[in-house]
Amino acid sequence: MSPPLPSCVEVPVLLSKLNQTVKDAKDLACLNGFLMRTKENPDSSDVVSPAPFMLLPSSIPKHLFQTALSIQPSINELYFKVANDYDFLWKTLEGTINVDEFTAKQWEIMKQVQTSGKKKSLQVGMLRSDYMLDTAKSYDLSLSQVEVNTIAASFAGLASKIAPTHRLIIRQLSPETDVSKVPLNNACSGLSEALYLAWKAYGNPQAVVVVFVDEDERNIFDQRCQEVAITDFDPTIKVWRRSMEYVGANANLTEDDRITLDNEEVAVFYYRTGYVPTQFKSDLDAEGDAAAEKAIANPDKFVMKPQLEGGGNNIYKEEIRTTLQKTAGTADRSKYILMDRIIPHSVKNYVIRPGYSHTETADYVSEFGFYGSFVSLDDKVLLNKAAGHQVRTKQKNQDEGGVAVGVSSLNSPFLV
Amino acid sequence: MSPPLPSCVEVPVLLSKLNQTVKDAKDLACLNGFLMRTKENPDSSDVVSPAPFMLLPSSIPKHLFQTALSIQPSINELYFKVANDYDFLWKTLEGTINVDEFTAKQWEIMKQVQTSGKKKSLQVGMLRSDYMLDTAKSYDLSLSQVEVNTIAASFAGLASKIAPTHRLIIRQLSPETDVSKVPLNNACSGLSEALYLAWKAYGNPQAVVVVFVDEDERNIFDQRCQEVAITDFDPTIKVWRRSMEYVGANANLTEDDRITLDNEEVAVFYYRTGYVPTQFKSDLDAEGDAAAEKAIANPDKFVMKPQLEGGGNNIYKEEIRTTLQKTAGTADRSKYILMDRIIPHSVKNYVIRPGYSHTETADYVSEFGFYGSFVSLDDKVLLNKAAGHQVRTKQKNQDEGGVAVGVSSLNSPFLV
Repeated sequence: MSPPLPSCVEVPVLLSKLNQTVKDAKDLACLNGFLMRTKENPDSSDVVSPAPFMLLPSSIPKHLFQTALSIQPSINELYFKVANDYDFLWKTLEGTINVDEFTAKQWEIMKQVQTSGKKKSLQVGMLRSDYMLDTAKSYDLSLSQVEVNTIAASFAGLASKIAPTHRLIIRQLSPETDVSKVPLNNACSGLSEALYLAWKAYGNPQAVVVVFVDEDERNIFDQRCQEVAITDFDPTIKVWRRSMEYVGANANLTEDDRITLDNEEVAVFYYRTGYVPTQFKSDLDAEGDAAAEKAIANPDKFVMKPQLEGGGNNIYKEEIRTTLQKTAGTADRSKYILMDRIIPHSVKNYVIRPGYSHTETADYVSEFGFYGSFVSLDDKVLLNKAAGHQVRTKQKNQDEGGVAVGVSSLNSPFLV
Repeated sequence: MSPPLPSCVEVPVLLSKLNQTVKDAKDLACLNGFLMRTKENPDSSDVVSPAPFMLLPSSIPKHLFQTALSIQPSINELYFKVANDYDFLWKTLEGTINVDEFTAKQWEIMKQVQTSGKKKSLQVGMLRSDYMLDTAKSYDLSLSQVEVNTIAASFAGLASKIAPTHRLIIRQLSPETDVSKVPLNNACSGLSEALYLAWKAYGNPQAVVVVFVDEDERNIFDQRCQEVAITDFDPTIKVWRRSMEYVGANANLTEDDRITLDNEEVAVFYYRTGYVPTQFKSDLDAEGDAAAEKAIANPDKFVMKPQLEGGGNNIYKEEIRTTLQKTAGTADRSKYILMDRIIPHSVKNYVIRPGYSHTETADYVSEFGFYGSFVSLDDKVLLNKAAGHQVRTKQKNQDEGGVAVGVSSLNSPFLV
């Protein structure tokens, strides 16, 4: 058991202060545009609500936070190289492609591009690498990687807005706390820089940036942050929101492989919908079988993740054993990735959600995400950097996370 | 008839662009925290809506805008001197005090302070001088002053947030328009500086700034902007929101005339409720009678304003004649100020309000407000400056304005 981390304020908070602070926090969240559309009206901004967030930032050892930031450019580069290594991807994904229609479809596109001989000259990576503070490996806390989100990595916009709110909350509850331990966050600007540089490298000042979106999008303000951030780099850039269906029906490919839409040339497509997780490991080999045996013996130490993203699909505990036994020797096993289970560090906190007053504390665990921006033109790297951070916090007894599915809440790090 | 002013974009806007732009504008308003609480839940920020605003900025000749800004320090000084001239105020307000209970009560307080011999050492002025583009006086447009708001001058917070939204709207509708003609606005910071400097001049770093507020406050985000802006000057300043009733019940006066509340000393009180209009003119004299005769003969050229603020109480047209005739020779006439009626310049525009799509244009008139900040310690002026601007726009056929009463909408100036 690792020693507890110092907290930004003493928990539980005195009830006399807590009620007012929760009200203040909601006001400040609104004031910062930290919002979501409502479940009832996901297609309209006539009535909106504060996005869910935690009252108190989550403590993280400063050196771990800085390490994660510092290795982000290497992760960016790794994913860029993997995404362009046709042979490695085939070797890794072959088993999955045989059983999973979605991955097979993506591979089909990749193969078409590969065999056409056409060059993917301009490439953009906007990643987020997620970690938890793991107590399972050693006495000291360490960061264990949960996953890397490759496209549609979300919440860079809202995550950039929460630090000022948390600083004000801490000042109210504990004037003696050093609020500079809640770092400011450039995630929104940092990620958007990749789109700006890609637009610029494309070389046509009239060309537009098209963001693929859904019509009913509760998380629209997160996306809007990035759209505005792109125009902060150059106010003449046109940024359009379009559905996949609309682009499918209205886009044209010119003879020299440029895409036009509504009479304008498209410089960059940014996917905020229709995303696919990139996979690196099939379990249908000897190494996979060995991992499966370990998981059948100790299911509590593992998590089984299917291809799908968005939360709510992972398999835990006893169900891992039965699923692995049922799929032994079959191709169905390739639909899953088997991962070491992280036993995350937990702390007391309060959640803030519209419609609830939440004056009771509970045990919460946090996932720390670090964004990465990457742009390459032919073989030249134009941008490769860490681009801010994100923290999502959920109750300890919740296996699955996900702000969109209503389980996780956004949060800030508190560097200790 | 003065020549029309150039508009920021061509009106009417093409319907194919307008529908999407209205949706975009609502998103951007939310993203900037340009919000109000709902009528249904004025005491909660769980569900909020964009505050009403105009789709397009209102054109104003640049030299008139700059003139109004440049004379604001003189207006600040004038109001400071008037507020401290006991004899002048008595001479001017005597008639009103005799018939109006509210003004009489304020005068009673002023008299108590005056006769106690206690010094008003630290004084803060946060004003807003409102003008309309008048077409009545000459061929050229001119600014005619409508009124000066002395305390609780509102919307400095929200007004500071709207310029970026308007710049983005203009870029979408008319890429060739120079958006720098929509000036950025420092009203929130500029007004809050007065509270910060007063707090600093008070000399006790532990002392708090208390904002008088109502519990049910739809316009809370406007107020919150200023509360946050105060702490931007010095993050250690405690800013409390309290009702008049709470302060009345819990504040104490020390023997050396300091006020304490909840065990803290209060440096400054900022009134966002319980405000009183300062009046300068009684009509119960020969000059007033002469003005009344003119208004009876030409009621369309005048407006009658009672003591009350907040919109919805002014008297116009034929009712001016009947009211003046009814109150001739009575003390009741002193309840009103008779003002020249402004015939304001009007333009086509669109209003944006939650729940409406507003794709039809109408004729709108604008009121241009300029904020002023003033702080004095004993006879020394610590701050005297213009502090940003505000534009409110309403339909031409609406006699009365007021964002709070749902008639006016916030707007930006477009300098031409």
